[in-house]
Amino acid sequence: MIRTMAVVGTGLIGTSIGLAVSRHGVRVHLLDKDEVAARTAAALGAGVLGAPDESADLAVIAVPPGAVGAVLARMQARGLARTYTDVASVKAQTARDIWKSGGTSASYVGGHPLAGRERGGPLAARADLFEDRPWVLTPSETTSQDAVNRVFEMIALCGAIPAIMGDRAHDDAVALASHAPHVVASLMAARLEHGSRASFRLAGQALRDVTRMAVRDTELWNDILQANAPAVAGVLRELRDDLTTLMATLDDLSTAPLDARGQTLEPMVDLLNRGAAGLAAIQERQVADRQTYVEVLVPEGPGQLVRLLDVLRTLHVEQEDAVPRYSAQDDTLSLVFAVPPVRAGQIVRELGGAGWNAESVSPDPVSVARKTADESPERAGRAADQFHVA
Amino acid sequence: MIRTMAVVGTGLIGTSIGLAVSRHGVRVHLLDKDEVAARTAAALGAGVLGAPDESADLAVIAVPPGAVGAVLARMQARGLARTYTDVASVKAQTARDIWKSGGTSASYVGGHPLAGRERGGPLAARADLFEDRPWVLTPSETTSQDAVNRVFEMIALCGAIPAIMGDRAHDDAVALASHAPHVVASLMAARLEHGSRASFRLAGQALRDVTRMAVRDTELWNDILQANAPAVAGVLRELRDDLTTLMATLDDLSTAPLDARGQTLEPMVDLLNRGAAGLAAIQERQVADRQTYVEVLVPEGPGQLVRLLDVLRTLHVEQEDAVPRYSAQDDTLSLVFAVPPVRAGQIVRELGGAGWNAESVSPDPVSVARKTADESPERAGRAADQFHVA
Repeated sequence: MIRTMAVVGTGLIGTSIGLAVSRHGVRVHLLDKDEVAARTAAALGAGVLGAPDESADLAVIAVPPGAVGAVLARMQARGLARTYTDVASVKAQTARDIWKSGGTSASYVGGHPLAGRERGGPLAARADLFEDRPWVLTPSETTSQDAVNRVFEMIALCGAIPAIMGDRAHDDAVALASHAPHVVASLMAARLEHGSRASFRLAGQALRDVTRMAVRDTELWNDILQANAPAVAGVLRELRDDLTTLMATLDDLSTAPLDARGQTLEPMVDLLNRGAAGLAAIQERQVADRQTYVEVLVPEGPGQLVRLLDVLRTLHVEQEDAVPRYSAQDDTLSLVFAVPPVRAGQIVRELGGAGWNAESVSPDPVSVARKTADESPERAGRAADQFHVA
Repeated sequence: MIRTMAVVGTGLIGTSIGLAVSRHGVRVHLLDKDEVAARTAAALGAGVLGAPDESADLAVIAVPPGAVGAVLARMQARGLARTYTDVASVKAQTARDIWKSGGTSASYVGGHPLAGRERGGPLAARADLFEDRPWVLTPSETTSQDAVNRVFEMIALCGAIPAIMGDRAHDDAVALASHAPHVVASLMAARLEHGSRASFRLAGQALRDVTRMAVRDTELWNDILQANAPAVAGVLRELRDDLTTLMATLDDLSTAPLDARGQTLEPMVDLLNRGAAGLAAIQERQVADRQTYVEVLVPEGPGQLVRLLDVLRTLHVEQEDAVPRYSAQDDTLSLVFAVPPVRAGQIVRELGGAGWNAESVSPDPVSVARKTADESPERAGRAADQFHVA
C-alpha cells in the first residue's frame, strides 16, 4: 500500500496528483526548484515541502518531457523512492532518454495521464483533475510487476482509468488525439495575430473552439513535438494533402464558369463529407447503434410541441436525434426520435402515462433518410427553389 | 413600425427570427417548400403558415446562400413584402446573384446574423439565438434608408447588435472569423474517419474543441465556400505556408543530431509564439489592458490559500490572472493578480473588510514577467534540472 509519495515538479499535473492522493491519507513530499511553485502547491494542500527522510513508496517525475530522463536518473541515484513513474505525453523518446541518462528500468513505469487544463501551474491544480480520465502506463519488458501495481494504486486514488499500451502505439495514438490538434489550433490562432478589428468583432463559436487549445507554453510543446516528431508529422502530412486539394478547388471556383462548377466541387464535397464522418466517429453518434424509434403525436394547439420537447428533456432523450414528421393524410404533426433499444419500452410507457400518444415504430426509411441526410453525400444539388434551410 | 413579417425558409435561423419577433407581437408568416419544416416552426410558435394576404412590412429570405438571389427576385415579383433582407453569410456574391436574377436593390438590405448552433433545422431554433450577437447589414448605394431602418427594427426585436459594413469587408472578415475555422475543423475531423480505437480512447479536450465545428451540412457549406472562395483561400494559404514550414522542422528534428536541434527548432518556436499571440488577441486578455495589481498575503496554516481562491471567485477576479509570490526575507506567500483599474480600490476594500491583508501594488516587473512568461519567446531553453512545470 502507498503510504508516502514524492512529487518532483509541482506544476498543474504534479500538484493535482498531490491533492488527489493526499485526500486518501498519503503523505506527499513536494520538490520543485521553483520555490514559489512548491510553496504554492503546499499551501493548496498538495503535500509537505522537501524530500522524505527515507525512500518514498512511489515518486512521480512531473517535469517537462525533455527533462524526465535526467531527473529520473538523478532521483534513482539518490534513492528518492522505491518505484518511479512520470507524466510525459511522449513515451518512446522518454524511455530512450532514461536509458541514455543511466536510469534503471526495473523500478520505472512510463505513465501519461490524459488530463489537462487550458492553464498550467499549481494554482490551476484540482484534486479531481484525473477523475474518469484515461491514464496510460507503458511498462517495458524489464519493469517489475511490483512497480506497475504501485502505480495502478496511485491511479485508483486519483479516480482515473488505467490502460496499458506499448510506448510506440501510445505515441501514435496521442499524435492524432492530442498533439496534432494542438498544432492545428496554433496554426489557426497564428492567423489572428494581425487580424482586423472587424474579424474579431464577428468571431463566432467556430473560431473560439478551433483556437482555444492553441499552445500557450511554447517551451513545453517544443519538448513534446520534438519527442514525437515523426508521428505528428504523419498526421499533419495527411492534413496538408487535403488542404492542398481543397485550395486547388477554391482557386478553380474563382475562375470556373458557373455551369462547370458541379464537377469542380467534387474534391471539396469529399473532404467535407470525410470530416463529417470523422466527427460522427468521435462523437460516437453512429445512427446504426440506435435501432429503435419512438413516434409521438403533437396535439393541435399552441405550445404543445414546446411542451413535448420539455418532456423529452426530462426523459434524457437527445434533442439532436428528434425529427418532425407530417402526415398530409391525417393532417397531423409528430416527432420521431431514435433511442437505445433497452430504453424504448420505458420511454413509451412514461410518455403514455403523461397523456401523450406515443408508440415504438420500426425504422422508418423516410425519417431515417432525413435524419442522416446532413451527413450523406447523396444530398448534393438541392434545387434553388427549395426553401428548407437545414 | 413592423407589424407583419414573412420568413421564407424555416430552418434554424428563420425559425429563430420568427420566435424572437413573435414575442413582441409581430405577426409572422412562415413559408417553406419543406412542409414539415414550416409546420414544425409554426408548432413551435414562430408564426402562422402561408403567405400574408397583403404585402408584409418586412420579409426575411432565410434560404441557403446559393438560392437567395432567385428566391428574392421571385418574392419581389409577387410583392410579398415592402422591404427585404437575407441571412446569408457571404454578401458580395449574393448581391451579384440578386442583380443577375432580376431582383431590385432599393427595397433590399443584405444581412448576416452572426449566430448559429451545432445543429440546424427548426427544432434547434431558439428565441434568444441572436441576443447580444452581432448582426451585419451591407446596404448598397441604392438601398433606401427606409429599408435599412425597417431591418434595424427587426434586429432590435431579436436583441442583436447591428453593424454596417461594405460587402467585401464583411466577406474578408468572416473568411477569417468563421469560414476558415470551419474548414480547419473539417480538415482535422477528416483524420478521424479511420482513427484507431486507441486514439479515440485517448481523445482529450483539444481534439474535441478543434473538431466540434466541423461542417455537417455539406451542401450549405459548399454554397458558402463557393461564394467566398478567394477570401477563404487567402486565409488557408497563409496557414498552409506555416504548416509546410512546421513540417520541415519536424522532419529535420527526426534526423538532426541532438546538439544541433536548438537552431532547427526556431521556425517551430516562432509559429507557436505567433499562435499564442493570436490566441491572446482573440481572448482580449492583453496584459497591457490591466495596469493595476493587487497583492494579498496568504496567512500561515492549512486551507488559507484555498479559502482565498474561493473569496476571489466571489469577487469575480479571474483566477487565470493570479500569480503566487514568495518573499524569502519575510518567509511569506502572497498572491498577486491584475484587475481593471476601476475595480482595484473596491476589491482591496472588500478583501480588507473580510480580514485579508490586501493592497494595490504598482506593476511589479518580477510578477509581470512570470505572468507573461508562458507567452514569451525569451523563455526558451529551460535547463533540464529545473523542475517547475508550467
